Amino acid sequence: MIPRTRVAQVLRPLARATASTPTAASSRMAMRCIATSAPRLLSASSPRRATKLTTEMYPGIKRDERFKQLSSDDVTYFKELLGSDSALIDGLHQDAAADIEPFNEDWLHKYKGQCRLVLKPGSTEDVSAILKYCNEQKLAVVPQGGNTGLVGGSVPVFDEIVINMARMNKIHSFDEVSGSLVADAGCILETTDQYLAERGAIFPLDLGAKGSCHIGGNMATNAGGLRLLRYGSLHGSVLGLEVVLPDGTIMNDLCTLRKNNTGYDLKQLHIGAEGTIGIITKVSIQCPRRSSAINVAFFGLESFEKVQQAFREAKGQLSEILSAFELMDGKSQSMVHKVRPDSKKPLEDEHPFYCLIETSGSNGEHDYAKLESFLEDVMTKEIITDGVVAQDATQLKSLWSWREGIPECLGHWGGTYKYDVSIPIQDMYAIVDDISAKMEEAGLVGETDEYPVVGVVGYGHMGDSNLHLNIAVRRYDVEVEKILEPYVYEWIADKKGSISAEHGLGIAKKNYIGYSRDETTIGLMKQIKNLYDPNGIMNPYKYV
Amino acid sequence: MIPRTRVAQVLRPLARATASTPTAASSRMAMRCIATSAPRLLSASSPRRATKLTTEMYPGIKRDERFKQLSSDDVTYFKELLGSDSALIDGLHQDAAADIEPFNEDWLHKYKGQCRLVLKPGSTEDVSAILKYCNEQKLAVVPQGGNTGLVGGSVPVFDEIVINMARMNKIHSFDEVSGSLVADAGCILETTDQYLAERGAIFPLDLGAKGSCHIGGNMATNAGGLRLLRYGSLHGSVLGLEVVLPDGTIMNDLCTLRKNNTGYDLKQLHIGAEGTIGIITKVSIQCPRRSSAINVAFFGLESFEKVQQAFREAKGQLSEILSAFELMDGKSQSMVHKVRPDSKKPLEDEHPFYCLIETSGSNGEHDYAKLESFLEDVMTKEIITDGVVAQDATQLKSLWSWREGIPECLGHWGGTYKYDVSIPIQDMYAIVDDISAKMEEAGLVGETDEYPVVGVVGYGHMGDSNLHLNIAVRRYDVEVEKILEPYVYEWIADKKGSISAEHGLGIAKKNYIGYSRDETTIGLMKQIKNLYDPNGIMNPYKYV
Repeated sequence: MIPRTRVAQVLRPLARATASTPTAASSRMAMRCIATSAPRLLSASSPRRATKLTTEMYPGIKRDERFKQLSSDDVTYFKELLGSDSALIDGLHQDAAADIEPFNEDWLHKYKGQCRLVLKPGSTEDVSAILKYCNEQKLAVVPQGGNTGLVGGSVPVFDEIVINMARMNKIHSFDEVSGSLVADAGCILETTDQYLAERGAIFPLDLGAKGSCHIGGNMATNAGGLRLLRYGSLHGSVLGLEVVLPDGTIMNDLCTLRKNNTGYDLKQLHIGAEGTIGIITKVSIQCPRRSSAINVAFFGLESFEKVQQAFREAKGQLSEILSAFELMDGKSQSMVHKVRPDSKKPLEDEHPFYCLIETSGSNGEHDYAKLESFLEDVMTKEIITDGVVAQDATQLKSLWSWREGIPECLGHWGGTYKYDVSIPIQDMYAIVDDISAKMEEAGLVGETDEYPVVGVVGYGHMGDSNLHLNIAVRRYDVEVEKILEPYVYEWIADKKGSISAEHGLGIAKKNYIGYSRDETTIGLMKQIKNLYDPNGIMNPYKYV
Repeated sequence: MIPRTRVAQVLRPLARATASTPTAASSRMAMRCIATSAPRLLSASSPRRATKLTTEMYPGIKRDERFKQLSSDDVTYFKELLGSDSALIDGLHQDAAADIEPFNEDWLHKYKGQCRLVLKPGSTEDVSAILKYCNEQKLAVVPQGGNTGLVGGSVPVFDEIVINMARMNKIHSFDEVSGSLVADAGCILETTDQYLAERGAIFPLDLGAKGSCHIGGNMATNAGGLRLLRYGSLHGSVLGLEVVLPDGTIMNDLCTLRKNNTGYDLKQLHIGAEGTIGIITKVSIQCPRRSSAINVAFFGLESFEKVQQAFREAKGQLSEILSAFELMDGKSQSMVHKVRPDSKKPLEDEHPFYCLIETSGSNGEHDYAKLESFLEDVMTKEIITDGVVAQDATQLKSLWSWREGIPECLGHWGGTYKYDVSIPIQDMYAIVDDISAKMEEAGLVGETDEYPVVGVVGYGHMGDSNLHLNIAVRRYDVEVEKILEPYVYEWIADKKGSISAEHGLGIAKKNYIGYSRDETTIGLMKQIKNLYDPNGIMNPYKYV
């Protein structure tokens, strides 16, 4: 039994928050900007070089000769169809490279296509007419939302036509009683959530790119984000979709009902299909009430075994109000502290592991009482070693910054090799120890410039078994990569994990799907692709 | 502003519960037993007559001549395959009609097939070998779980072979940290939930037939049940499925991870497919922690407008702890009281509408305080007129019995025409007024035996927009039916509702899908059926 005084000490309010820490929103965005799972060096300090063409980076990919080259007649057809200069960027008849660049390149400047025509349909009928024509003419296309994806799924590889959904951005209806929202695919997530906030509701999805990403793109990539632990997967919250199929057929499955058992739930196939079997044009989704109270606690633990115990207790005791349970290892926190020495650490001592818990509910006093009681309990049981609770919004943001600032800080020395994976929870951290030991054994880790590796760290969404395995490096090094691949993928396959927890496949992971899916399943997926898109015009060279 | 004394009166504890009211479990089961949406008379008092053959009731359905008749060789093949006498009921070589009857008939005794062979596979490999053989031999099959469906989906129409899953009933794993459960399709829902209860978890689905239904059948019918408001749809909580396809292919998508974005989410097609494109053999599902505290309130309101206001307030103020919001109209409650005059009513006065609210959370005191505060608020705002809160488990069951006892009591006069529909919430009750007015106008409603209709009532799951429209009658009457159909279906189609909220299509609603789905969508569904089951052997004559 721990003395009561020590328990009281654990529950002391956090009174050291500094005003200079970045806001949750900005640091979250920074985290997203750096995130990537392909082993590629991203330098935070060096000036940006011109992005290489994807075809140079992937010389093995050849243009599918089934696809027609864009002609003047095609452009004329689209101009007549869309009827507005602003709805089309024509790179065939004029030099529009600069205008087209933002549509050809992803925001990480990792992938660059060679598209010469961008179409911006204004209606579902426009999308239908475009796809019907492209399918008949064998013109390949790339559906594009906010272009915030991390695996190169939303930009062309060769000369595919970009169909950008930004003009379809209307909210059609929101039923304040049932919580069902119907909106265009091109609505920006944050704008949509603000609309809901004014009506006491919340979009059941939150992620770093919310200021740019489209809700249609969120559906197409089955985005997971920060609220999955609480609000569940989009497969559960999406009520209906309107989708234009590759041949122009409009599938109107825009139901606003929570229960509708009348036939196969076809819309589910399009959630996470990454635009390979249709373009999502409208979304109907169940939006919960917005919680009025948010509380955050931050604590240290001595082993991953204790982290699992704490998670189990949190699920039991905080149950319905638990909205986040984030994991950070000691190495990640000490690296954040090295980069930001002026930010005072939430806990004085060093701990092998740290967790951040967020609760959200309808009564702040109740939630705080539950959180206090939980912390007392896990302290008494010696599950956690030390901890603090945020007393106001500034402290809350400060605590979050120690989790959300990790990716940005890891890039400080030069770059980061990153993997975004799901692993059954009991094995979730072992891969970090394993890779770390291999790097040490190979003599690659050290404090000085002669060593390529600064450190191997693990952090992520404990609540979703979603680990970010990161290797912070000073420079690109083939010896480091030799250790990482295919070893990491084999390790994940062996534990029945997923090589892509939430980012999807795109072009980056197309070749690795076999580590997470068996041949039969991949064959069945290809059957679906062939059923809906026999000419293969939708987002070619990617996905399965 | 209402005087404080009146508010206090509303919050008085319920102290009049009688011990003689049926338990929630038994009355819930009773509710399910009577539930049916096809307009057919069910008499609670008369002795059961022999069930008519489905082919007599639906003379328009002809046996598909593509299907082979069962031969002695086929039975020999299956006997060798399954290797155990108890794994097969052979009605070809012996008179096994009595043994086969429970597999040929549904539990409501509404549908009866003419199957002469029941197979009970013991493994996924057995199921695969059976389907491969049947597909090659063109033998039609009916997958069967607990046979508790309400639309005739789980029994044969002609001589289809029944593949009953009862022998595959093992729980394979439960991860107490992540909450993922892996179990055979033939596990009984209640048994599975008891297993989870011992480990502090809950199956994210609850329904009246839980003592008999299989979890595989729950998945195949996309069961909704009593907890959907809280735990969401199975499309969100199912993590993975193992499915045997009609040609014997085993699709192993038995993931235990919450996040896995590696290709099309094929398992979703099988959730709600009613066994028409494969047989679900194993289930992986996310199970939340079990709530330790349950509270129930019951109150009266003066209009459906006020019911909607109360629901909106409940979602806002009770938010994360709200686990049920049930609606009952005044007519339904007065009819329950007529049948059970000795049960004292929860509220003394009559009200046009009643609601039952259930909360479940991790802290009973907090939940009770929230519920009290909610009731004070809606009373002060004159949204509700009167109300009570259960003080113990007996009172809780008693309050539930006024909701769950409705179906049983409505059958008291002879039978009930029943519709289980989803309608956008603002229009949800209007259909009851509408049908009621039509019956009155036609002079069909009255207190004495000369009138066929006793009353038109509405009740259901307000939280899911799921209405039970019931017409209690003294006898079968063609004039009543003329008013009901196709008017009810047209009414639902006009409001973009669903003709089957949770029971599915089966044989009962196969012909009505056009009221809830357009031709394009139905065409796309048939495309999926043809892709997976080109010989049409899986559960023929039903579904889409």
